[in-house]
Amino acid sequence: MPTTEALSPTLELAFELIRRPSVTPDDLGCQALMIERLERLGFHVERLPFGDVENFWATRGHHGPMLAFAGHTDVVPSGPHLHWDHPPFEPCIDEEGMLCGRGAADMKGSLAAMLTAVERFVTAHPDHHGKLGFLITSDEEGPAVDGTRAVVEHLREAHERLDYCIVGEPSSTTRLGDAIKNGRRGSLGGVLHIKGVQGHVAYPHLARNPIHQALPALDALAREHWDAGNAFFPATSFQISNVRAGTGATNVIPGDVEVVFNFRFSTEVTHEQLRARTEALLDAHGLEYQLDWTLNGEPFLTAEGELVDAAVAGVEEVMGYRPELSTSGGTSDGRFIATLGSQVVELGPLNATIHKVNERVRAADLEDLSRVYEAILARLFVNGTAQP
Amino acid sequence: MPTTEALSPTLELAFELIRRPSVTPDDLGCQALMIERLERLGFHVERLPFGDVENFWATRGHHGPMLAFAGHTDVVPSGPHLHWDHPPFEPCIDEEGMLCGRGAADMKGSLAAMLTAVERFVTAHPDHHGKLGFLITSDEEGPAVDGTRAVVEHLREAHERLDYCIVGEPSSTTRLGDAIKNGRRGSLGGVLHIKGVQGHVAYPHLARNPIHQALPALDALAREHWDAGNAFFPATSFQISNVRAGTGATNVIPGDVEVVFNFRFSTEVTHEQLRARTEALLDAHGLEYQLDWTLNGEPFLTAEGELVDAAVAGVEEVMGYRPELSTSGGTSDGRFIATLGSQVVELGPLNATIHKVNERVRAADLEDLSRVYEAILARLFVNGTAQP
Repeated sequence: MPTTEALSPTLELAFELIRRPSVTPDDLGCQALMIERLERLGFHVERLPFGDVENFWATRGHHGPMLAFAGHTDVVPSGPHLHWDHPPFEPCIDEEGMLCGRGAADMKGSLAAMLTAVERFVTAHPDHHGKLGFLITSDEEGPAVDGTRAVVEHLREAHERLDYCIVGEPSSTTRLGDAIKNGRRGSLGGVLHIKGVQGHVAYPHLARNPIHQALPALDALAREHWDAGNAFFPATSFQISNVRAGTGATNVIPGDVEVVFNFRFSTEVTHEQLRARTEALLDAHGLEYQLDWTLNGEPFLTAEGELVDAAVAGVEEVMGYRPELSTSGGTSDGRFIATLGSQVVELGPLNATIHKVNERVRAADLEDLSRVYEAILARLFVNGTAQP
Repeated sequence: MPTTEALSPTLELAFELIRRPSVTPDDLGCQALMIERLERLGFHVERLPFGDVENFWATRGHHGPMLAFAGHTDVVPSGPHLHWDHPPFEPCIDEEGMLCGRGAADMKGSLAAMLTAVERFVTAHPDHHGKLGFLITSDEEGPAVDGTRAVVEHLREAHERLDYCIVGEPSSTTRLGDAIKNGRRGSLGGVLHIKGVQGHVAYPHLARNPIHQALPALDALAREHWDAGNAFFPATSFQISNVRAGTGATNVIPGDVEVVFNFRFSTEVTHEQLRARTEALLDAHGLEYQLDWTLNGEPFLTAEGELVDAAVAGVEEVMGYRPELSTSGGTSDGRFIATLGSQVVELGPLNATIHKVNERVRAADLEDLSRVYEAILARLFVNGTAQP
């Protein structure tokens, strides 16, 4: 039988958070739980609700550089509970020592590890150098408009300094801390409507088939070499995700085609360049089209610096192996925080089960993660590698 | 005001037929009306219902070649009656002398013209040379499985001879009889599923985008020169009518693409050749795919012969101008009849309003059409151009 006996402080807090089914944008008291403990540690807490999203910004200390932990209390939906081995919002440690439940890996486990790391650090170093912060949202998995983005704008207007930020996103792949994300690619989306002239397939000379017209241009876009990437980023990638054309009838040439595509782009190219090059290519093919763009996120990169050094050394100290720096994967709230000029890394548990049924994480990994966070704090604020 | 006074026998019968809202596959007594009059003329009538479709085959005479009129009593739906100037199933002659109503042009007007033509001919030539026939269905506008196709199979099994067939489809374009269709292109449909490997757009190296893979092959199919056509047919045409790919999510590379396409093909190529060439091209592009074919109709052609000669001469005699031979447009029931080795022509009123609201045809055109049909009968069976 799974056990809940003799839980560590980190696991106890993770259990408390997972028990709240805080599907985006609901927080359901997760932040209150964190705030209560932070205030007890002497943090000054500012609640920053925007729209239906709850956020808070907590700080401790008045001098020196700021290191903030960032994260989210919201989780993706669980889907039917029947598909889970254990109910998704009733946390447990299974026979294999895995903490099971929605949010265990993404990212209530990280939130618990951050908080207990800071509790131990502040208790040991009540007069620590530097400032500590927590930037917590309940809308990372959703539209991500009223969450971190809005808090960051608030901090910018308040001229708040945020030198270093550790985002608790599950960055690890096969063992805890084997990968630290020090950047993310940008994401640029396009919805393209190519117009033709509808008609009957028996009279093609009276129609202009927009599918046929689109094919060479789309093929050219798919083959285009956008850039070669760089030391930190793979080459920019263009992918068509959706195509819709046709009335459903087999004898009608449709009047238009809708093509949805997405760029994941490196720091070697800007979104303005990608837009201009795409449109030039469509124009060169003589297409009649409408193209609507959405910039989901600019790329960001913390190529080097005190935070990356401390994070790498912190993992090595606790885990005994050196993490790899990576910029792979989707977008994260790091893209917003980086606009403050902060050094940003993402460091959290294994991401194998996130957004899936039976989300789980090794319970022992959360203890290790908490110790890694604490080691990073010590390196920056006790050993004094942080820049004053 | 529209008038219904002093209608000719052809218009009176057309009115009677249009009053029956015989939307496919319903006949609603149209065939009974025709059968009653044909039996009065001495026709032997065989009712041939298949499934929910009513059909009949009527013959008169015992010797010599067989000339049959072919047609359908079913009509396409009218859509909302509000959109019509006159209620679609309440026939009338409007101020401009147009017979208005669903089926006026396609093809209850033709049915009335055939029947009165035969009535006059038989009355004038009760011991006419050759045999007369009527092949009437109530499923030309629908699946076309239990209609003419099934009757033709019945005739084939009965070793019934059908030398000449006039299909009453609306073949005319700007004035009555300006075009006679002496053939139709074939129609071959394909549903193509191209398989890839689904994945996240952020990890394209873990996926295989089937849209990107499909583009060069589809472009090659769209550019392919299938044949050059011939004196009777335009070049074979390939058209993609529908494309579906994607989950709707903008960040997911889909696992497959569905492409629906259609060939309209000439007698210069067979459907077997088109299938083989299409599959060879897909194979050459290294695609993993599934392809389901539907042969909607083989092409047919009555390049020359007594029927074409009589039809051209009949139009010229009544209308004073020479019709053009054409094979353009969609498929018709002629494709089934031609498989009996028959000479087949399609000759009927103007097709400008068929399948639309306010379907209509000049009332005077139906009188002329009836006289053209009668002239063709006389040329074949009185002047004796029919081959014994």
